[in-house]
Amino acid sequence: MRSDEHEVAEEPQKQDGRKEDVERQLHKLRRRLDGIDDKIVALLSERQTEVEQIIAFKKAHSLPVYHPAREENLISRLRQQGRKVGLDPDFVEELYRRVLRQSRVEQTAHMARRGVRAGATVVSVGGNGAMGRYFCRWFADAGYRIRVLGRQDWSEADARCKDADLALVSVPIEVTTEVIARLGPYLPIECVLADVTSIKGPPLEAMLQAHNGPVVGLHPLFGPTTSTLDKQIVVATPGRNASSCQWLLDQFAAWGSIVIQADAGEHDDIMGVVQALRHFATFAFGQFLRLKDIDLHRTLDFSSPIYRLELVMVGRLFAQDPSLYAEIIFASPERRALIKDYVRCLNDNLTMLGRGDKALFCEEFKKSAKWFASFSEQAIRESSYLIDKLIERF
Amino acid sequence: MRSDEHEVAEEPQKQDGRKEDVERQLHKLRRRLDGIDDKIVALLSERQTEVEQIIAFKKAHSLPVYHPAREENLISRLRQQGRKVGLDPDFVEELYRRVLRQSRVEQTAHMARRGVRAGATVVSVGGNGAMGRYFCRWFADAGYRIRVLGRQDWSEADARCKDADLALVSVPIEVTTEVIARLGPYLPIECVLADVTSIKGPPLEAMLQAHNGPVVGLHPLFGPTTSTLDKQIVVATPGRNASSCQWLLDQFAAWGSIVIQADAGEHDDIMGVVQALRHFATFAFGQFLRLKDIDLHRTLDFSSPIYRLELVMVGRLFAQDPSLYAEIIFASPERRALIKDYVRCLNDNLTMLGRGDKALFCEEFKKSAKWFASFSEQAIRESSYLIDKLIERF
Repeated sequence: MRSDEHEVAEEPQKQDGRKEDVERQLHKLRRRLDGIDDKIVALLSERQTEVEQIIAFKKAHSLPVYHPAREENLISRLRQQGRKVGLDPDFVEELYRRVLRQSRVEQTAHMARRGVRAGATVVSVGGNGAMGRYFCRWFADAGYRIRVLGRQDWSEADARCKDADLALVSVPIEVTTEVIARLGPYLPIECVLADVTSIKGPPLEAMLQAHNGPVVGLHPLFGPTTSTLDKQIVVATPGRNASSCQWLLDQFAAWGSIVIQADAGEHDDIMGVVQALRHFATFAFGQFLRLKDIDLHRTLDFSSPIYRLELVMVGRLFAQDPSLYAEIIFASPERRALIKDYVRCLNDNLTMLGRGDKALFCEEFKKSAKWFASFSEQAIRESSYLIDKLIERF
Repeated sequence: MRSDEHEVAEEPQKQDGRKEDVERQLHKLRRRLDGIDDKIVALLSERQTEVEQIIAFKKAHSLPVYHPAREENLISRLRQQGRKVGLDPDFVEELYRRVLRQSRVEQTAHMARRGVRAGATVVSVGGNGAMGRYFCRWFADAGYRIRVLGRQDWSEADARCKDADLALVSVPIEVTTEVIARLGPYLPIECVLADVTSIKGPPLEAMLQAHNGPVVGLHPLFGPTTSTLDKQIVVATPGRNASSCQWLLDQFAAWGSIVIQADAGEHDDIMGVVQALRHFATFAFGQFLRLKDIDLHRTLDFSSPIYRLELVMVGRLFAQDPSLYAEIIFASPERRALIKDYVRCLNDNLTMLGRGDKALFCEEFKKSAKWFASFSEQAIRESSYLIDKLIERF
């Protein structure tokens, strides 16, 4: 039974015939809409086939697959096209961003199998952990030869490191420097030594100490559940002989990642804020909701999209591995000091709260607003987009 | 000059002819893709026209416009259709969610002009403020007669309230109860009295005191910059004679809003968390970034999507009116007490941080994880969706 029928509150007998008629006409209109949708889906499939042909062609001629300028031109053209036929250009742009992302994901999926140095030998140190296994899969798919050096395998270290082109260390943060020191003597001089630890200072120093060949520190800003590396960030902190390490960075770029260069000190300072402080703030907010035993599901009934967005980020954190967050937050004395400063800064607001001092709040607010001013346009644009997406979907 | 050309690092002279050929072929492939895109845009425009016809038809036959079940059927059908022609069904679903939202927005834009009680008289008390002006526009577009009762207009209160069907109070929170008390004597007994204050206890009580006719407290969870009311939440706290207030709630529903019923006490408790606590936490995080003078733009270069998402929410807050947030945070002694508890709860983590006690952190984390468990699947699903959207767009 159509739910429409409940809504027409007229005398049943007299209206039956007319109602059937209305239903029939509405059905006809909807069938026309369905016909259009079928054509759109068919065209999307045709489009996908064309994109596959272009990829094959580019591959055959060693042309780069991703072409940002072409994407922007395409969007501009279709916005105009849309406006001409009475569509909201923002609507057309959003749809096509999604379409283009889909083809990019497909393209990089193809590219995953393209090794920048296919055939080279990668020793995955800690290759049985989640992150180690993850990278083994990517390198293996790209045609590299993989050897795993796990915790139990040190008696075989000599054989496993022989003629290695890359030793990639992905072990827990607290044993990283120790593992690197132990690994060093087994590596051929021309082998690239790299790690994927979330802090970069101490591991990089340890690598430079342990190995005289090329060294680069990496911090991939994603976890082992990320299905595509499209636009995922990898921070690279140069150690020694950057040109010999370049192929490794090119490999990440070929997988779709964005490689950002920084020195280890800058990386660690910024990550204190981006990861440690941010995660701690989220942890503390969730901890408080639990201690107060707030009715989460009822808060969601009432929630503005902003609260909902924040709450799903809190829920996301607590759905993950505690030790991962403990490692990030407690990684260094500097980080712990930063977080303590943050708590103290919150404390400084207690007097204002106690006195109900709105004027002081507004004054502090305005200072921060001024400080954030250069970011505010971007913040509004991106957050409005996210809020729209949240409203659209859930 | 095409950016591709830089990438083909071969001997220039010998390759010129072949390169031109490759360019020509690529151009041909791209033209085919462009042709498909043109067809898709044309079909989207056709689709929009069909939707407009369906709206007109429904309007003419007094049928409800929004039809959730029909939407879900359509999505299921197109997912299947997509799968048949080799498309990722999630991709098809996401595209169509966007398409359907667009037609919903268009439909409600049409409906905005459909008044549930068109012709009725609405007195907008505080109608010169941002929120007052906003609602005046919506009611006027829906065919209501609008009279504004501003701060300067009390000498005319008698005339403006005569035969009013609704008095809608949208004045600053600190004068709400006072304005309501002053307004009461002017209202006809059958007039609906409603307010849009972000706390509900004291204003509702004041309305029941001041007026013996129908009373309902409203809290629209959106601001005067919201361009569509589609799926925007309005909390309704019943006061007196709910059936006489129903048309007002129906009007919000006709505009696309979702009306949630709650009693004033529950509303105020939950909003303490959803608004006051959440905004304070965001305020304090931004305040700390300023005090530490962190290089925001550099943190964004390095940022994971999660940090970026959080940071744009912080930036968004500081792009708005401080007094709005001061009002929400300082609205009641209960709210200030809640926030003070939050700061104290953060303090309790200082010893753990000082000692670098990872074990205690993990223990606390696990307790919270258990507490959040019933929410975690939803949190992962929604946050992953948002992160994908962020990566896709920016």
